[in-house]
Formats: sequence, structure tokens, C-alpha cells
Amino acid sequence: MILVYDANEKRVQKFLKVCRKYLVHVQRSVFEGEMTEAQLRYLINELENIMDENEDSVVIYKFRTKKYYERETLGVEKPSSEEFIFS
Amino acid sequence: MILVYDANEKRVQKFLKVCRKYLVHVQRSVFEGEMTEAQLRYLINELENIMDENEDSVVIYKFRTKKYYERETLGVEKPSSEEFIFS
Repeated sequence: MILVYDANEKRVQKFLKVCRKYLVHVQRSVFEGEMTEAQLRYLINELENIMDENEDSVVIYKFRTKKYYERETLGVEKPSSEEFIFS
Repeated sequence: MILVYDANEKRVQKFLKVCRKYLVHVQRSVFEGEMTEAQLRYLINELENIMDENEDSVVIYKFRTKKYYERETLGVEKPSSEEFIFS
């Protein structure tokens, strides 16, 4: 799973706190991780409680397999969920 | 493909300009789109020319198939590459 958010500055700290409970912080507003559909529902529920639906935005990309997945980074190396979860 | 960047404010406009040539702007620093490996190399080359490798960061997630892919959004609806490319 990859989660990206775009929140008003006032709420960024809340977003960070909630997302960090479930996922690995990869970049300013980008998170990665693996979770079950049930965990995802908890996360979404928490995010809906803190977000302003007219101002903030969250996009979640879900992948059922990592088989066809490749990750490439340029510049400063950021943590990958691989390092935390899969190895 | 999903591309996210985290660049110094001074270079954000340049990043936007380059990424928009190849991809759909989904969120502040997030882009989506489909491209060939050759196009990706052009994009990476352009990004490497404008980025400061000690300060900026780009993460590219590549997927060979959309078969196992699902996208979910909360809050403000952002454009999806689906609308531009696949429909």
C-alpha cells in the first residue's frame, strides 16, 4: 500500500501521527506499508475523523501482490517499507 | 507509475514542470501515469539535471500491470491518470 496525503498545514501533524501508527514514513507526505483490509478500514476511519473533506485529500494505492512492483529512488535515500517489514 | 518527490522549495517549480511533461499531477508532489522504460529514462535524466542529490528526493513506483491495482481517495477528489489516459 502507498498512501499520499495533501492536508492543510494545521492538520499535517495529526495526519503524520495517524499514518505512522500503520505505515512507514517514506517522504514528507508519503507512506508505505502492508496491512489487511480490516486495518485499512481503521486507518481510513481515523483519517476521516481528523480531515476536512473540503480541503484535505488522501489517495491510497492498493496492490494485492508485490510481484510486478519495482521501486526506484533518486537523490536522498528514503526509508522503504521493505527494510521494516519484509527483511 | 507513481512518482513522488520531495524537493527544496527553490526547485519545486522545476520539478512540477518536468513531471507534467510526462505524467498527470495528482497531488502537490505526486504524479501518475503510464510510460515506456525509454520515456522513464528521459524523465529521470531531466530530473537528475535539476535536482540537488543531497537535498531532494524522488521515489518512483513502477507496476508492470494494473491488474492487481486499486485506488481509493478520501476528501477532495484529485485527477487520476485513468481519466486522462485509459478512458
